[in-house]
Amino acid sequence: MRPELLTRIDSLLPAGGDTPELARYAQMLRDYPQRGGKGIRSELLLGTARAYGVQPESPEWQRALWLAAALELFQNWVLIHDDIEDDSEERRGRPALHRLHGVPLAINAGDALHVYMWMAVRRSGVDRALDEFMQMVLKTAEGQHLDLAWVESREWNLTEADYLRMVRLKTAYYTVIYPLRLGALAAGREPAPQFEAAGLALGTAFQIRDDVLNLIGDPAKYGKEIGGDLLEGKRTLIVLHWLAQTTPEQRKEFLERMNRARTEKDAGQIEELLAWLRQSGSVRYAQDFADREARTGLRALEEALADAPERDATQALLGTMKVLATRDA
Amino acid sequence: MRPELLTRIDSLLPAGGDTPELARYAQMLRDYPQRGGKGIRSELLLGTARAYGVQPESPEWQRALWLAAALELFQNWVLIHDDIEDDSEERRGRPALHRLHGVPLAINAGDALHVYMWMAVRRSGVDRALDEFMQMVLKTAEGQHLDLAWVESREWNLTEADYLRMVRLKTAYYTVIYPLRLGALAAGREPAPQFEAAGLALGTAFQIRDDVLNLIGDPAKYGKEIGGDLLEGKRTLIVLHWLAQTTPEQRKEFLERMNRARTEKDAGQIEELLAWLRQSGSVRYAQDFADREARTGLRALEEALADAPERDATQALLGTMKVLATRDA
Repeated sequence: MRPELLTRIDSLLPAGGDTPELARYAQMLRDYPQRGGKGIRSELLLGTARAYGVQPESPEWQRALWLAAALELFQNWVLIHDDIEDDSEERRGRPALHRLHGVPLAINAGDALHVYMWMAVRRSGVDRALDEFMQMVLKTAEGQHLDLAWVESREWNLTEADYLRMVRLKTAYYTVIYPLRLGALAAGREPAPQFEAAGLALGTAFQIRDDVLNLIGDPAKYGKEIGGDLLEGKRTLIVLHWLAQTTPEQRKEFLERMNRARTEKDAGQIEELLAWLRQSGSVRYAQDFADREARTGLRALEEALADAPERDATQALLGTMKVLATRDA
Repeated sequence: MRPELLTRIDSLLPAGGDTPELARYAQMLRDYPQRGGKGIRSELLLGTARAYGVQPESPEWQRALWLAAALELFQNWVLIHDDIEDDSEERRGRPALHRLHGVPLAINAGDALHVYMWMAVRRSGVDRALDEFMQMVLKTAEGQHLDLAWVESREWNLTEADYLRMVRLKTAYYTVIYPLRLGALAAGREPAPQFEAAGLALGTAFQIRDDVLNLIGDPAKYGKEIGGDLLEGKRTLIVLHWLAQTTPEQRKEFLERMNRARTEKDAGQIEELLAWLRQSGSVRYAQDFADREARTGLRALEEALADAPERDATQALLGTMKVLATRDA
């Protein structure tokens, strides 16, 4: 993320604390934001504001920067809770927060960071952004519920439509649709209604691409553990497609291994599942699906931005979005 | 809580969900609010608004009701996360949410309810209430951090001042100070600065009284498990006072038993600790401490409300506060 966003986040968070315990609290709040992160969502927001004519150093740019900082705070508190919910081991190359401080303190730190997100929204002075953030967080929580509930209830009897619905709610709104909307609002523009269709397609492409990278990505470039989705029992388009066309024996074997708790999973057996998936045509199927969604989404976004006055900035935004939807890390 | 608050909360939350999983999500969000709860904080807020002249059926009363509903939503999302953090078994006579649906889904439901709290604040139309809620939640989270961190790091080397600081942050702000402030704001009044001192004393009395009831309360009237604080390893004024004056042998024995994880605790051994505490003078000491705080706080509050125009409503508010600080259930 941009240094000026981290500066803004820093200025909101408690500086130290006059006891060792309150110093630890302050440090826990700063931990994830300081680990960095690509800052893709905040870049989309700022890029949209630029496309709509916001000039650096203008008051509108300050608004956009506060909203961008709020998006990063959103990402960070969600990741703290997400890492607990998935019992992830690592985040951005270091142990997850709950693995450093235990689950209770990490839940509480996530709740506090959630409040600082609202503080950043408030600082932007864009009154409507409060309602936008409410809708954004609620969409994400609804998608997150589906994702987690399928793991919890061992539900594998799912269609492509089920998967797409979950991914749109969980990823597309906060990764694409709301960054576009908030960037427009910072510029004093009414967000284009077409952002929604464009963002649903682009967000879906982004997530499917992430699912693909989780299986076949370059460990040196991809920030998370390769195969981690299998360990966490995530339902992905790849797995659902593969399950629908594999042999009954492999299907049975797969479900049996996947339905074990993370700690009960055998590393060798998971490696074998990885190999089955990689050798199947399902990775290709998912990649083609993502490519189609990316093309559809980019075309829709180009149209939605047809009246954006800053054409160079608009082209840059479309370029960023393309990289995002077809990323290899 | 008052039926009109539950009606307001109901109107914000998702009604059903068009799949069984989304129906479960909607049901999880409604679960804690529907279990009832005394609604003491919302009563204080509404009582303060009345004392400052707000008439039922007036627009100011609608504002106050939305803020009261937001306070109840705060209490409910915090309790969902609290129950996970303490690994509580029950809440209001039923299994805790995470014991019904697992930790991941319950964390997520708490996060969503947190957003609905902001929605209720927003509905009140009292713009400053947003900042008040931010400060309130952050104070509470800071106190919660101390409480949880002492358990996590097995810290028993604590003074009375440490305990009082934690309790003020964790309980006094959201139980007394902010309900008073928000009630005044709903009435269009600047909150009296003396609310803080009054509320710190009253909130402390409330919490110490809760600690006492947790040891010697009437199981039929007290909503939580008698002795539950010991199972959760809570630091209380009673325990800290007792540790400071007991024999080295009993101290050693106590700390050894308390430092075990909840699931490793032996019920019979905890019963014995309960007996030691009950037989000591420490329960009396804590009760006297709470009584002094209650008297100080009530006097301060009476002065702070000297200029409140509705004298009957003011007397009723002081009466509610007195019951709260000296409650026996």
